[in-house]
Amino acid sequence: MHRTKVRIVEEALDANNTIAQANRADFDRAGVRVVNFMSAPGAGKTALLEHVVADTPGVRIGVLEGDVQGSMDADRLAALHVPVTQLNTDPSFGSECHLDANMVRSALPELPLAEIDLLVIENVGNLVCPAEFRVGEDARIMVSAVSEGEEKPLKYPLMFRACELVLINKIDLLPHLDFDLDRFLYNLDAVHPGVTRLLVSARTGEGLGAWCDWLRVAAG
Amino acid sequence: MHRTKVRIVEEALDANNTIAQANRADFDRAGVRVVNFMSAPGAGKTALLEHVVADTPGVRIGVLEGDVQGSMDADRLAALHVPVTQLNTDPSFGSECHLDANMVRSALPELPLAEIDLLVIENVGNLVCPAEFRVGEDARIMVSAVSEGEEKPLKYPLMFRACELVLINKIDLLPHLDFDLDRFLYNLDAVHPGVTRLLVSARTGEGLGAWCDWLRVAAG
Repeated sequence: MHRTKVRIVEEALDANNTIAQANRADFDRAGVRVVNFMSAPGAGKTALLEHVVADTPGVRIGVLEGDVQGSMDADRLAALHVPVTQLNTDPSFGSECHLDANMVRSALPELPLAEIDLLVIENVGNLVCPAEFRVGEDARIMVSAVSEGEEKPLKYPLMFRACELVLINKIDLLPHLDFDLDRFLYNLDAVHPGVTRLLVSARTGEGLGAWCDWLRVAAG
Repeated sequence: MHRTKVRIVEEALDANNTIAQANRADFDRAGVRVVNFMSAPGAGKTALLEHVVADTPGVRIGVLEGDVQGSMDADRLAALHVPVTQLNTDPSFGSECHLDANMVRSALPELPLAEIDLLVIENVGNLVCPAEFRVGEDARIMVSAVSEGEEKPLKYPLMFRACELVLINKIDLLPHLDFDLDRFLYNLDAVHPGVTRLLVSARTGEGLGAWCDWLRVAAG
């Protein structure tokens, strides 16, 4: 029974990859680079985006906002006058805990691809399933907040392994936490040796210039 | 196509509920009450359990520890000399992002039901899917850390609606966050009016006595 289940999962991922490649081809044709932006709930993805979407010179950023339901994050970003498209996994997609390539494909007609250089796809807050589903992105960024503890790379290795950049957020809280940053970095290197990592705080703005630089290169 | 997918999801949930009822009957026969303990990754479930598993007078607590992989949390709890059983969703269960009734059923032979009054099932860190799968529990507790922001009840309403108790953790961080507690409570009451809530800090111990009292009643 387990073997059957694993096979069904593999077939679903194969189908997803085929659609992801079609998405990627459409993005390439439009000259748009795409980032899949992932984290646990409350790690600060939207707050981080609020800092860079309007403030990264030379890069026109658009956002595809994934949520189970509601449009709170999309509303926050739209207030900054950047193009934002909302994608809800409930009810059309059975309340899925992640975005997949087919959901992103369904949103393609709504995306103003001619007006942007970089599309940031803000995934559903979840450290498990989003890492399993490519959506047609060029790169994957994940956010890990220091308030979540230093063992997260060991508990959710697929997510930390899947990404090209790890943003270590909420570093303004370090003086108030029992969080051993060296231990976190050791755990991170254990699952994804040498992956690019940036220490940031969406609250104080620390480290966000380096992230803007990274996004500029990614949009290049 | 969406309708077909929704039907498949409903059938899977029906099958899950049947197995959950069988689990519940086995727990009842053994005189063990069961709590399903859920939260986002890093909200502090294990740290909260460390305080109460050995320190709740009159209640013998056992833990069933759910993780995608690894046994770090189980090791932390076993060090306190309480019975802990590890359940990994990877690889046998296809790296699922939640526990379901069948996984818990597979662990039943390992559980020392004769030696405990209350079984706490620590679910995989995730605010979406764990809320959809009953596992045979009497009650559900979820932990929301104040560092995750005050809009979480609105973004993950099913989880906040599914539980009988909400532990609002990491309140020691309140002076260092832009977190509006009244706003969080307003959002909580919007999705689950009047649900029991306790303000706690696993770091300072604040509020944990009230939680022990709640567990004693649940184990009653």
